[in-house]
Amino acid sequence: MIEYRNLRVAVLGGGSVGSQVTALLLEHADELAARAGAGLEVVGVAVRDLDAPRDTDIPKELLTTDAESLIVGADIVIELIGGLEPARTWILKALHSGADVITANKALLAHHGAELFEEAAQVGAQLYYEAAVAGAIPIIRPLRDSLAGDRVQRILGIVNGTTNFILDRMDVTGDSFDNALAEATRLGFAEADPTADIEGYDAAQKAALLASLAFHTRVPLDAVHREGITTVTADQVVAARKAGYVVKLLAICERVLNADGGIDGVSARVHPALVPLTHPLAAVHGGNNAVFVEAEAAGSLMFYGAGAGGLETASAVLGDVVSAARRHVIGGPGVAESTHADLPILPISRVLTRYQITLTVVDEPGVLATIAAVFSDHGVSVEAVNQTVGAVIEGVPSATLITVSHEATDESLAATVAALADNSVVREVVSVLRVEGL
Amino acid sequence: MIEYRNLRVAVLGGGSVGSQVTALLLEHADELAARAGAGLEVVGVAVRDLDAPRDTDIPKELLTTDAESLIVGADIVIELIGGLEPARTWILKALHSGADVITANKALLAHHGAELFEEAAQVGAQLYYEAAVAGAIPIIRPLRDSLAGDRVQRILGIVNGTTNFILDRMDVTGDSFDNALAEATRLGFAEADPTADIEGYDAAQKAALLASLAFHTRVPLDAVHREGITTVTADQVVAARKAGYVVKLLAICERVLNADGGIDGVSARVHPALVPLTHPLAAVHGGNNAVFVEAEAAGSLMFYGAGAGGLETASAVLGDVVSAARRHVIGGPGVAESTHADLPILPISRVLTRYQITLTVVDEPGVLATIAAVFSDHGVSVEAVNQTVGAVIEGVPSATLITVSHEATDESLAATVAALADNSVVREVVSVLRVEGL
Repeated sequence: MIEYRNLRVAVLGGGSVGSQVTALLLEHADELAARAGAGLEVVGVAVRDLDAPRDTDIPKELLTTDAESLIVGADIVIELIGGLEPARTWILKALHSGADVITANKALLAHHGAELFEEAAQVGAQLYYEAAVAGAIPIIRPLRDSLAGDRVQRILGIVNGTTNFILDRMDVTGDSFDNALAEATRLGFAEADPTADIEGYDAAQKAALLASLAFHTRVPLDAVHREGITTVTADQVVAARKAGYVVKLLAICERVLNADGGIDGVSARVHPALVPLTHPLAAVHGGNNAVFVEAEAAGSLMFYGAGAGGLETASAVLGDVVSAARRHVIGGPGVAESTHADLPILPISRVLTRYQITLTVVDEPGVLATIAAVFSDHGVSVEAVNQTVGAVIEGVPSATLITVSHEATDESLAATVAALADNSVVREVVSVLRVEGL
Repeated sequence: MIEYRNLRVAVLGGGSVGSQVTALLLEHADELAARAGAGLEVVGVAVRDLDAPRDTDIPKELLTTDAESLIVGADIVIELIGGLEPARTWILKALHSGADVITANKALLAHHGAELFEEAAQVGAQLYYEAAVAGAIPIIRPLRDSLAGDRVQRILGIVNGTTNFILDRMDVTGDSFDNALAEATRLGFAEADPTADIEGYDAAQKAALLASLAFHTRVPLDAVHREGITTVTADQVVAARKAGYVVKLLAICERVLNADGGIDGVSARVHPALVPLTHPLAAVHGGNNAVFVEAEAAGSLMFYGAGAGGLETASAVLGDVVSAARRHVIGGPGVAESTHADLPILPISRVLTRYQITLTVVDEPGVLATIAAVFSDHGVSVEAVNQTVGAVIEGVPSATLITVSHEATDESLAATVAALADNSVVREVVSVLRVEGL
């Protein structure tokens, strides 16, 4: 039944994902061949250390430390070593030799995507990266193909399992950030050095990939506004729930429209935000991921599933392997990167958002009017104010004021916060969080 | 920038979806061309009546009643007339002439899919049908491509917006089925003749398509067990919520394993079922759709969005149009239907499920033991029993007994219900519902 020649598959990396991918390629060989229309022969697995312990046994004779030789002559190269180098050099070499490349390396794509996609387009090879965003959840193909005839307006993504685990735990148990992080580390949801996750670097890389794809515009990583979750307090999380929200770290990609409804540009940003409890993203618990997409014709879509474990990532990688193999059998060049729109990329200051601002103020007549004037001076209108009486500080009674703004530019909102902090009736700016998904 | 020749696109059908698709093809022509790599020229829209009123204006000069001439010479044919004939004949004609075909016609695919896919494979054309299941929600491409390297174990789908609207309304308002249906009709969620929806025919067609794709096995429509929602009572819905469930019409596709963990075969079925309130599907409200997929490596995934409105369906159709156009530009035949697994298709009697059975019984000592014996005589074990005192009927006190079984074959469970109905201590079998998603 299989008439095409066997395709030579090289795996770069023998870590958690690499060993799972190799095991599945060997174990499910017949099934994958039937689906691909060609046999898939693993020609080798390049590792740094032949004797390192692995999640899944890889046959000794497949292991090699000579990645460069492995790449030569491979039809499909699977890059699972992570990091920028030598991954970049090896992928370029593979593409240059005409191999299709599959990678889960979001950092590399976010930093060097343009160069890699250009090399792929020049030789007619294809660069697949479904595993780079949200583990096994199909999101690259739906954005590239399924929504290719639609116009994506906005993406709200929970794309980092570690931070979602931490924030969910803070919400459920009342834990502080530090305690929730310790628990995440203990359970293997956070790495020994959690910086990339908790500071939002990982999510920012994924935001750059999603925005580029959704808006047919190269969005470089350094254009993504990034805030992590280390400053989120237990008090903020408790107050959020009381007000009908949950705090999530969101990757947000959106088209920014001008007053005439034309497109001013696009923006990508990562920051903690208040999400209404009624929004589907609020129900994404633990280490799970979800990507909520709003498109002109399709309306609201959500893609939900587990984050990026070894096995989940292997599922996405193998889906790409079958696609690559089918493409080999069919012939012809791959689908090139689509950057035709080339829209301006706007800084976060230009983005329309809402702020929830919690203040401790002096509790005396006229304070609310003073605060309201600060908002209106900055062109920001207030949607809701909630005032509760607080402690008496140095003989002066104080009150807590929780305000939620209407939509305004992030620039005006930030300026409003700065002015509030300087105002004599304000004792403290307790919390500032953006509100999304309303 | 666009160097390929214009591709000739023929639209068959000028109804709600057809007019939306045509409008978007014309309005977004430049954008679609940039994404596809070739211009998309609408060569005509075949309609029955040139003067019928339409949702969106179609330029008069594009309208024609001569579909057959339109098909000749088209590169891409979009079939949106629905029904079996002449849709089948026209699609065969289009494929035979080498055109790629896009259809939203689940009834046609469920009845004549094998014939159409074979014709497509023979000429190397491609048959796209993302719009046939769950409107704009990308599910065909994720199953065909993204999960091509994984093994799907189970699909639980809310794939019919009308029935989900009705059941959700019964749940939220306590309405009877008849009243909820009337409301659905009033709001345009149900057609004048709602039979196809409320009797589960529409969902069964989608189940056949999903099962065929997920299991690489042709699952014919008549192998899909089908029950509608017309017998679901307000009492059942209220009792379900009290017990921590919500009633949903589910399309269920699953692999059935034997005792050794080998695959006995696959099954597809549509019936109302109790879904735990903690399951993501329980949160799918109104006319929305969602498909929950369990795969060996990927774990649990969910795809969520609006049901099949005109605009949503147009989004899915246009995604397929861009894919078809890219394929033309690249060259080579399409990806053929994958039916290599060719697994046995099992009847519902072989499927493992759970029943919630609500009985009115005579309230006297020993009744519970009698009931329990009926279960065990059929090899079914009981997970939970809940007994409440009921009315005195003809001098004899009665009680309501709600039992939830452990997993057993549908055959054993059905036999248990029959035996219970015949037992003298049972006054009435009040409700029988399967439980899914535990």
